[in-house]
Amino acid sequence: MAAGSPGLRINGARLLESLARLAEIGATPEGGAERLAFTPEDGAGRDLVRSWMEDAGLEVRVDGIGNVIGRRAGEDPDAAPVMLGSHIDTVGNGGRYDGNLGVLAALEVARTLNDGNTRTRRPLEVAIFSNEEGSRYHPDMMGSLVYTGGLDLETAWALRNPDGSQTLKEELEAIGYLGDAPLPGPVPAAYVELHIEQGPVLEAENIDFGAVTGVQGILWEEITLNGKANHAGTTPMRFRHDAGVVAAEAVLLARRLTREIPAQVATVGRMSFAPGLTNVVPGRATFTLDIRNPDPDRLLRAEDGFFSGLDAAAEREGVRIERRELARFGPAVFDEKVISLVEEVAATLGKSCRRMPSGAGHDAQMLSRVCPTGMVFVPSVGGVSHNPTEFTRDADVAAGGNALFAVAFKLLKS
Amino acid sequence: MAAGSPGLRINGARLLESLARLAEIGATPEGGAERLAFTPEDGAGRDLVRSWMEDAGLEVRVDGIGNVIGRRAGEDPDAAPVMLGSHIDTVGNGGRYDGNLGVLAALEVARTLNDGNTRTRRPLEVAIFSNEEGSRYHPDMMGSLVYTGGLDLETAWALRNPDGSQTLKEELEAIGYLGDAPLPGPVPAAYVELHIEQGPVLEAENIDFGAVTGVQGILWEEITLNGKANHAGTTPMRFRHDAGVVAAEAVLLARRLTREIPAQVATVGRMSFAPGLTNVVPGRATFTLDIRNPDPDRLLRAEDGFFSGLDAAAEREGVRIERRELARFGPAVFDEKVISLVEEVAATLGKSCRRMPSGAGHDAQMLSRVCPTGMVFVPSVGGVSHNPTEFTRDADVAAGGNALFAVAFKLLKS
Repeated sequence: MAAGSPGLRINGARLLESLARLAEIGATPEGGAERLAFTPEDGAGRDLVRSWMEDAGLEVRVDGIGNVIGRRAGEDPDAAPVMLGSHIDTVGNGGRYDGNLGVLAALEVARTLNDGNTRTRRPLEVAIFSNEEGSRYHPDMMGSLVYTGGLDLETAWALRNPDGSQTLKEELEAIGYLGDAPLPGPVPAAYVELHIEQGPVLEAENIDFGAVTGVQGILWEEITLNGKANHAGTTPMRFRHDAGVVAAEAVLLARRLTREIPAQVATVGRMSFAPGLTNVVPGRATFTLDIRNPDPDRLLRAEDGFFSGLDAAAEREGVRIERRELARFGPAVFDEKVISLVEEVAATLGKSCRRMPSGAGHDAQMLSRVCPTGMVFVPSVGGVSHNPTEFTRDADVAAGGNALFAVAFKLLKS
Repeated sequence: MAAGSPGLRINGARLLESLARLAEIGATPEGGAERLAFTPEDGAGRDLVRSWMEDAGLEVRVDGIGNVIGRRAGEDPDAAPVMLGSHIDTVGNGGRYDGNLGVLAALEVARTLNDGNTRTRRPLEVAIFSNEEGSRYHPDMMGSLVYTGGLDLETAWALRNPDGSQTLKEELEAIGYLGDAPLPGPVPAAYVELHIEQGPVLEAENIDFGAVTGVQGILWEEITLNGKANHAGTTPMRFRHDAGVVAAEAVLLARRLTREIPAQVATVGRMSFAPGLTNVVPGRATFTLDIRNPDPDRLLRAEDGFFSGLDAAAEREGVRIERRELARFGPAVFDEKVISLVEEVAATLGKSCRRMPSGAGHDAQMLSRVCPTGMVFVPSVGGVSHNPTEFTRDADVAAGGNALFAVAFKLLKS
């Protein structure tokens, strides 16, 4: 692309306007949005973006899990498409950027190509994946998981909503998004997703883009420690089986592993002691462990280190451990060529860029199972996400759109 | 006392029978008793024991806080009495022994003296102190606290019951125990209380009696740590202000102090993280600290050590500490002569005995402010107390009664 050629830059104002208009659907008093998957608000959001896809001349298809894919034809009828996208469902009382930015920036890429009457060798596909957040139906990233063959459609259809009154299939039908496009879906030539970082790194380091190298593997466990409740005044220390002390050792053990194992994060987010009285030694402690690492071997090392340390602490105190696995996903590793392309594009745009793993899950991690995949991160102010105050500066939104455009343009020609 | 002299042994069967009959009032399905202070059940329990006092020829007086004191005259009209007693109120769903044993064994001492027509130089007083447990009105040990001048009667009278519908004075009047005996009460020559240990030491060491040296000083605090809630996947460790990690350090710090400071116990009994989600770094942690030591200087050392360590941990993590003091009582130190007397009596009875502090609070600690005081502990099976399964073996109940009798008999002659 030479400077001045049509499509070199997206229309940042149009992208911001689209973000603002989509945020009006399910708008919350604090300035965020709530469009939980498969609710009428989700349906209304889909209707709006679908109408924009059609306005942009895209050929829209809907599949059985409700994924909406708009296609802009390419010159080569046999070439697989480049897919760009994300999701437009939100968490409860969520923000305006998470997911929405990736879908609307993908649409903006199509609009920009249209503006320049630009033809591409490969088709471009703009994807809205269903239920990425998983707030009403587990698992999260469901639409992309079904698209890539990781979850059976019939199984997904039979899931019941939180109050049990309807199945997922019934809700899809009610909002008009029970389609018949084939599943698993056709494999793209590549998949690229623009997303807010949802963390503090880019802002803190004053860097424009993250070239995402993959998504961390994740393990969630709920752990219950069973000791013995006893009087806090009359029970000498040597007679105690204090579940709380072992739980405290677990918290510090998790923290210690993050210093010993590269790129390791670990969090104990939930904790409670029972019976929970000031003057009673806790007989039971229940807590959760969340450990993540982009490297599967390191994640295993963290898991093994944690549980062998916990076993030793529990044995010292005479406390019994119960474990319940809540979630386990292997790491996703993105395509080196796409990652490098993001870096090249950043340099071309005069922007700073760093490679980084994604701490959160994204549809890209499902697509990476079937095709070369990458992501572009833009900074989140204060690292805040899943919150009405989620915010990315207008200039960063536009810059991210330009990066996505440039990456897609290269891939569309390939 | 020579072997075979009247009153050498109490009537163990009679004492056990009295314990069983009192436990019928407020009996719970699990085999315990519930007679919360100043409720109709407490009134009925008082009526029964008061009638037994009268049957035993004791002169009964009731004071303004509802303490019931039965007096058996001595030979010397000017001698101060030896007081024995405890309480008959229970915690919710409590046991049959806590408090009751001390009152009924004191009554059994009087009955045994009667059986032998034994005259004593000093009068004997059998005391039922009001509201030792503090389950409905704070503070606990209220009757003995008012008796010894540590709490003003008018202040106590004005307290409102848990649902706010009546004052303490109105409830006392309703159960017929608003008396007019003078308060603070006359100072006894000595006070001795038989009580179950409520801990595991005597049973574990296979020892018959505890010669109680005093009651531990106690400090209760509620501590809230304020950090920053953040995404567990996207927030690198170096950006975290994890309140849960500092709370865990606090738990282990409390444990460590118990190894460094003699006779120190420490308990974190209550703990919770907020927002309390698996994938969110805890922004807030709230917990309680219970530290006790029989030595006031050591207790201060524990307090200082804990909070200076907590300050350092909180500063490292960038977390702010809020403290709220819930309770603070200085240690009570019992009288060396009474403690030695308990040991002598144990030897005379052919029983094993060890000196030990009391981990829990007792009416004796209030009486120790005004007169030479001691306690005798008998073993608690499994260390269990404040529970329907609270149990002390019949033989230990009888042995404890004999010890109380022998100690009282010596003091009554003194």
